[in-house]
Order: sequence, then C-alpha cells, then structure tokens
Amino acid sequence: MKLPGTVAWTEEGIRILDQTLLPAEVVYRVLETIEELEEAIRALRVRGAPALGVAAAYGLALALRKEKPADRAAFMDALPRARTRLEKTRPTAVNLAWALARCEERVREEKTPRVEDLHAALLDEAHRISEEDRLLCERIGEAGEPLVPDGGSVLTHCNAGALATAGIGTALAPLYRAWKKGKRFEVFADETRPLLQGARLTAWELREAGIPVTVLCEGAAAGLLASGRVGLVLVGADRIAANGDTANKVGTYGLALAAAAHDVPFYVAAPFSTFDPGLPDGRSIPIELRAEEEVTGGRAPRGVRAWNPAFDVTPARLIRGFVTDRGLVRPPFERRPGGRKRIG
Amino acid sequence: MKLPGTVAWTEEGIRILDQTLLPAEVVYRVLETIEELEEAIRALRVRGAPALGVAAAYGLALALRKEKPADRAAFMDALPRARTRLEKTRPTAVNLAWALARCEERVREEKTPRVEDLHAALLDEAHRISEEDRLLCERIGEAGEPLVPDGGSVLTHCNAGALATAGIGTALAPLYRAWKKGKRFEVFADETRPLLQGARLTAWELREAGIPVTVLCEGAAAGLLASGRVGLVLVGADRIAANGDTANKVGTYGLALAAAAHDVPFYVAAPFSTFDPGLPDGRSIPIELRAEEEVTGGRAPRGVRAWNPAFDVTPARLIRGFVTDRGLVRPPFERRPGGRKRIG
Repeated sequence: MKLPGTVAWTEEGIRILDQTLLPAEVVYRVLETIEELEEAIRALRVRGAPALGVAAAYGLALALRKEKPADRAAFMDALPRARTRLEKTRPTAVNLAWALARCEERVREEKTPRVEDLHAALLDEAHRISEEDRLLCERIGEAGEPLVPDGGSVLTHCNAGALATAGIGTALAPLYRAWKKGKRFEVFADETRPLLQGARLTAWELREAGIPVTVLCEGAAAGLLASGRVGLVLVGADRIAANGDTANKVGTYGLALAAAAHDVPFYVAAPFSTFDPGLPDGRSIPIELRAEEEVTGGRAPRGVRAWNPAFDVTPARLIRGFVTDRGLVRPPFERRPGGRKRIG
Repeated sequence: MKLPGTVAWTEEGIRILDQTLLPAEVVYRVLETIEELEEAIRALRVRGAPALGVAAAYGLALALRKEKPADRAAFMDALPRARTRLEKTRPTAVNLAWALARCEERVREEKTPRVEDLHAALLDEAHRISEEDRLLCERIGEAGEPLVPDGGSVLTHCNAGALATAGIGTALAPLYRAWKKGKRFEVFADETRPLLQGARLTAWELREAGIPVTVLCEGAAAGLLASGRVGLVLVGADRIAANGDTANKVGTYGLALAAAAHDVPFYVAAPFSTFDPGLPDGRSIPIELRAEEEVTGGRAPRGVRAWNPAFDVTPARLIRGFVTDRGLVRPPFERRPGGRKRIG
C-alpha cells in the first residue's frame, strides 16, 4: 500500500507534502522557519488534527534552533513564545495545543543547563509524538477494522487519512487495515467544500492505495444514505468534549443527522488525545471561522458575504461509537463516582 | 426592485439570460432552433422548473416554425416529435412535461385546417403559460409573505427565484414581497454544489434587488440551523408527489433533516402544477443523474468516479407546508372519500 510522507523532520527543516497542490502536483516543501510553518498551517499546506500536532512539535524545535538561545534561561523564555505563536494558527484542533504543551513540559523536566541537551530533548519529544501517532493510527485501524463491511460501501467526510496524520490515518485507518485483510468495499468521499479535502486528498490517497473511491457533493450524502447503499459512516475528529460531542470538519453534523435518519452506523475515529476532558460539552469548543473568499472565490457576485466556519459540532447522541487507539468507546459516558465524567 | 428577464419570446427566437455565465457576465442569447434550446436546457443556460416549462412551450413554437409543415396533418405529425425531444432534456421537473402536454392539447383542440392558425394557437398557449407563471409567482409571494420573519434570517437552497421562473420566483417570491412591504431580514443562500446556483444566481438576483445575502457551503447549513439564527427555510420544488414527498435540488433533503432537528419551519414554495398526482410518493419520482465531470472537474484525481444526482427527495413529514398559488397547503394530505389522494 503506497502512502504519502505527510510531515517529517530533516536537517534542513520540516518536510511536508504541500496539500494545497494535490492532486494535480505532488510537491514536498521544506519549511525552514516558524514563519514558514505558520503560513503552511494557516494555508492548510499541512492539515489534519494529528498531523498538526506533529508539525507543531517539530515547529518548536525549528523555532528554538533558529532562535539560538545562549543559555537555559533564554531557551525557557523563547519556548512559550514559540508555543503561543503556533497555538494561534488553528484554534479548533486539540492535538496542536496538546503536542505543544507536551513538548514544553518535557523540556521543563530536563534539569540540564546545557542548551544542546534542551534542543535534543525537544526534538526527541517531537519524534516521539510522530512515532506515537504512527502507532495510534495502527491501533485505530485494528480497533475499527471489524466495523468495515465486506462488499458494501463506506462514506467518509473531509480527509482523515494518511495525509492528516503521521501514520495510516484515523478514519481511513480501519479501511486500509480491512483492505489489507482482503475485505472488498467501495468508499464514498464527500468532496468537502470549500477546500475539497475529500475530492482532492481522500480520493487521491485511496486511489494511490488501490481502493475504489467515488466522490459526491455534501448535498448528495443524505440521498445516498437514504438509498441504503452505505453500511458505515466513518469520520475523524478535531476535538471531542468530555460528553462525546465532537468537532470535525464542517458538514459532519449534517452527515450524522442523515445517518441517524437512516439508521446507518456513524463512527468517529480519533486518537484518544482528541478527547478534551476540560470541555464539558460541544458548546465550549471554539470554532474557527475562515476567510469568506474560500467560499465566494471567483463564483459569487462581488460584495456578497460568506459564512465559513471550518468545523461543526456533532452531538454525542448521534455517534454510535469512537474508534480510538484504546479500542472502541461508546457514549454515553458515565459519571465516575467521584463526579468527574468518564471518557471510555 | 430590479429583476432579470429570464426567458422571453422574440421574432428571432427564444431570448434567454445565459445562467452559466452569471454572475461574471450578463449575456442574453437568442435560441433560433430546437437544437439550440435542447443544448441550453441540458447545459442549464436556462433552468428552474417553472422557467423550463415556459422555455419548452416556446420551444414547440420555435420547432414548428422552423419545420414549416405544409398542412394540418404535417403540423400534428411534427408536434409530438418536437414534444418528445424537449421532454427528454431534463427528466425530473414536472413543469416541462406539463407545459408541453398543455400546448399539444391546446393545438389539438383547434379544429382549424389553417397552419398559420395552429402556429398562432401554439404561440398563444406558450405566452399564456409565461403570463400565468408570472401571476403564479405573485400569488406564491402573497401566500408566503406572512411566513417571512421581520428582522430574522431566511435560509434557501439552489435558486428558486426570478432566474428560475418567468416572474419573481417561487421560494424567493415571498422574500421579494416581504421586502417590498418593508420587512427587513437577511438571506442565507446555500452555494449549491456542484453548479453553485446559490452562490452564482440566488446571490446575484438578491443583491440586484438590494436584499442582504450571505453564501454558505451546504456542509455549514446544519451548524447554522443549530445556531438559532434562522427563522425560516424556504426552498423550491421540481416535482411533488401526491403524498407531498418533494423532489428538489440535491441537498434539500439534508437541509430538511437539519431544519427538523432544530425545529426551524421548513417550507416548499412551488406552483400548484408542480404536484404530480400520478405519483403516489417520492419513490416514483425519476431522479436525473448528471455528468460526473460536474463534480470531479479539475479538482479530483484523474480516474476517480463521482456520483452526481441533480435532485433528492424530501419526505412530506419534514415539510411544514407548501406555499402555492392556491395558498398555503399543509401535509399530510387526506384521502378523499372516493379513495383518491387529495392535494390541498
């Protein structure tokens, strides 16, 4: 199975596959500064919640390397500044903030005064996050594989595949795993307006992997679900509240409503770290509003406004289960005797 | 209020506003042959169920004028041939077949042997259909105006406005009427992939009329409805089965599900002739599958398939009411004592 190298560390900087050019061109870029990384994240050259976590972790290493702090104090002073800059690039995906916090914590734990050791610890933590993400994807694939029908169809939204992670993806991982085991099925991919991650990215990586894929407009999904041809809906997640309410690419909520209307199992695949226990429910998830031009660009009349939220929130009651690296988790999540919500 | 001349008869042929070029260019074309009209209908240069009825009626007049039948027998022989050709251009909209049948019937009723009288009758019937459509739109506007909130927002899908009719539209008619009466509101227009009739056409004609309009992707509509900002969803219809199941532009069904989930009133506006009493329910409405290229065009990887139905079917239970030229009609439709379903 041929899968892309979405994000990797090199001596020159962070190497990414520029996803804005896919599928027409397969171009790898090396980002040498934090400014280049910020631009790449905002422009969605690198995207997908888990891949953003990995890229941001490497971004800290990159920023500190360029900053050349003279001593530990300067290093520890520069670190949160870089962290804050990277955190601001995309507000919804929890992985980004989570990876940055983890890197900073790791460095704070290193008691060494030697700057080169701090650099090494930072880069090591970023490598760990990347390698862990690869393993998480494998485990998500294993946990979700039994859900994949043999001979039927699966519907997915946006791109939660290899291009969104450092591994074989989240929502697509069970499909890759099932295909490898010999199951045969077709994937329907919502094109995912406005940026067409489904038509451009999911279609591209599934075709590269040899899995049959058919693209459709978001508007056609409810009719497809009504037709009875889809046995499973599987999507990724950018942030999951403690009660299971899930933020994912805009359009996911409507898809979940349509799946529920036709009793098609609707599952969310994500690393366990996507759960944000600090948020009681979906109302507190910050939703990124992106540029109006992404929607109006070239087609709407001049001067017409657009409303362009990047994400929406699917309530937990519409989600049959979460496919995670810790196995299949089903809502509703009970309260622990201690009063804290239990996730999984 | 400035509204476009969507379709009109001229000495040279059928004058249409070419909707494939909007909003970038406002180009009127005169179609001089039935071939040109067939192409214009298939390419959606002229579109919208009521406008298609008017265009098809004029198309018969055009075809017969070009055919130059020598006598009544030749005229009556050519007429159904032209009718069949035009009927085949778009299978879903009932108005097209309805207008063609009505023209043919009118001509059959003319017992004159004079070919010029038959021509005159045919053209007269087409003019009547056009003028009636204008009046139907006015009545739909009147019937629906009380539903329009003053100060709130209305969400619509595709284009069911002046560009889809020979008048002020169907779904947009109540909005034009309410605006003229002094109500103030904002319109959210689904962009309506793949052909962007919302972003291109609805946004254009509302802006021309001075009504504030904001475009959004279909995927964002469920989140918008969840936000509580929308007081009314109003869409058009291409065909309505006897039980109220409604075929309209693909994406309407998902929108209706989301409106129901948030208890936002969902209404369908259409001339009464859009009801097809011959179809018991939505399952028997033929759904046009259009070219895959409309979806994949330029963005999806080469060789990837697309599923591109032009319409979907919204079950009657999700529709709060129908705004028609005969007033507001609410499902469920009862059976008459005689056993025939009663519409309205």
